[in-house]
Amino acid sequence: MDTVSPPLKVEKAAAFGWAARDPSGILSPFHFSVRATGESDVKIKILYCGVCHTDLHFIRNDWGGSSYPLVPGHEIAGIVTEVGAKARKFQPGDKVGVGCLVGSCGACPSCEASEENYCPKLIRTYNDTFPDGARTYGGYADTIVVDEHFAVRFPENMPLDAGAPLLCAGISVYSPLSYYGLDKAGLRVGVVGLGGLGHVAVKFAKAMGLKVTVISTSVGKKVEAVDRLGADGFILSTNEEQIQAAVGTLDGIIDTVSAMHSVEQLLRLLKARGKLVLVGLPEAPLQVNASSLVEGRKSLVGSLVGGMRETQEMLTSQQSTASQLISS
Amino acid sequence: MDTVSPPLKVEKAAAFGWAARDPSGILSPFHFSVRATGESDVKIKILYCGVCHTDLHFIRNDWGGSSYPLVPGHEIAGIVTEVGAKARKFQPGDKVGVGCLVGSCGACPSCEASEENYCPKLIRTYNDTFPDGARTYGGYADTIVVDEHFAVRFPENMPLDAGAPLLCAGISVYSPLSYYGLDKAGLRVGVVGLGGLGHVAVKFAKAMGLKVTVISTSVGKKVEAVDRLGADGFILSTNEEQIQAAVGTLDGIIDTVSAMHSVEQLLRLLKARGKLVLVGLPEAPLQVNASSLVEGRKSLVGSLVGGMRETQEMLTSQQSTASQLISS
Repeated sequence: MDTVSPPLKVEKAAAFGWAARDPSGILSPFHFSVRATGESDVKIKILYCGVCHTDLHFIRNDWGGSSYPLVPGHEIAGIVTEVGAKARKFQPGDKVGVGCLVGSCGACPSCEASEENYCPKLIRTYNDTFPDGARTYGGYADTIVVDEHFAVRFPENMPLDAGAPLLCAGISVYSPLSYYGLDKAGLRVGVVGLGGLGHVAVKFAKAMGLKVTVISTSVGKKVEAVDRLGADGFILSTNEEQIQAAVGTLDGIIDTVSAMHSVEQLLRLLKARGKLVLVGLPEAPLQVNASSLVEGRKSLVGSLVGGMRETQEMLTSQQSTASQLISS
Repeated sequence: MDTVSPPLKVEKAAAFGWAARDPSGILSPFHFSVRATGESDVKIKILYCGVCHTDLHFIRNDWGGSSYPLVPGHEIAGIVTEVGAKARKFQPGDKVGVGCLVGSCGACPSCEASEENYCPKLIRTYNDTFPDGARTYGGYADTIVVDEHFAVRFPENMPLDAGAPLLCAGISVYSPLSYYGLDKAGLRVGVVGLGGLGHVAVKFAKAMGLKVTVISTSVGKKVEAVDRLGADGFILSTNEEQIQAAVGTLDGIIDTVSAMHSVEQLLRLLKARGKLVLVGLPEAPLQVNASSLVEGRKSLVGSLVGGMRETQEMLTSQQSTASQLISS
């Protein structure tokens, strides 16, 4: 025990946010408190917070388990206002972000690999509970206090409003592109669904030098995919002729769709050794023929946001800067 | 064009084997011919041939597409009796094997990676057709002529009868253990099903220094798994208590089962980042929850026999020798 530590500040600080009180979908003003800035904590003045579709699910209790009052928001960008006595990563005034998690066990193999997002004891940024019983409240608020391990640094040249969505939508697609080796220039990847995750996936993939094909059920997405985001191709998944023409052409697919859909159709589009990465969560079981994986040594894999090291890596990568440029 | 080539021998040679003439399951004597030994060919006197369950399926036309007369057998071991003028790998007298394939396009990305088994134009050892229209006949015979690229060398100390099954059953499990990085000493792998592929998987896995758990629906397999093959553990998959105790403990699973079964149950046994490798072919689609892959970044992958380079690597590996020792 470190007997020369300064006395812990036990006073909590006042905070203000917007909370859901029930599944109605209405948020209302909410006065709450954040913990006093602990030794390894940073206190952040929140300036921007992305609106993730997950927030809507939690607000409405779509998945069950929502506990009210619930302050959503896990794409948080702001400025450090206070640092704990033993915090080393940040100084007051630093531009920082907080994503989907604010705690983990720190000792399991996932934590050791800085894949805290797969820690069995991970603590989510909102609608979760710290070990001391305190509830976690998210980024639809003016203040958050987190252990500095769970804050990341924004590059000086990245606008905080544009950077915030990278902390969930961005890392959700950057992580699998990187982890599954789909980030090598020249590879051909498909992006299924052009919503929140899909459009960031296209931007990252283009910034990585990939050939990108957007696959969608909506013909109206073609203009957005090709003209606005710079995708190299577009497949209307209800058009069997377009599907047939693309069979065996893709090294990987990032599948962002949470509605039920045919993964068999997508597996056909992969080359041998191709990888279909699920980042969406359809509710009913998917139907997969073993032969569709065995013939061609294909992979059906999953990915869920990202760990702290790769989130920081994403923000400081060239691709991140490039993807911002594309969006501007 | 090489104008100084010796004239091609066009005389075919007589061969004798056992052929299915219909789906009855009965094999009868069959006199046929093999091609004259071409420039890059080797002619092999077959001494042993493994009996693979796939042979039974083809004999009985279980999968449709069987064309009679059909000489089965793709775990072929024998002695080289003749080599073509430009063949360089082998000499008469060499101990060689032929596995599941005898031809491929030679130019596609799979062929370039020596993963000829995933070539879209691969030619199977039997019940298939060469580009010139000649049928392929397998190893239930006294002679085979193949391009030397599709023959592998047996180590001097490997008995041919014991080595033959490595050419299908062996490579079917060695390839995924190696390709998916499940061959590192100390990793924990499960082997589902203790049939032809499963028992070789246990032997290879043990020879690689892995901790092996056999998972089976038959309690009677426990003695064979643990006492005879040296598995470290056994799980009766119908016993929910045993399953529950093993949740999250395995780095990978080699699933050899072709009957319908729950991959969801097996995915639960994996650690984060774990890989479930299908090498069997259940006929109906498997049911997979996206969340079972997304949470923990798990992989459901397939694998089908192996390429020529890795087949040779398997035969000359220490593990192969060690696995033979275990079997003796």
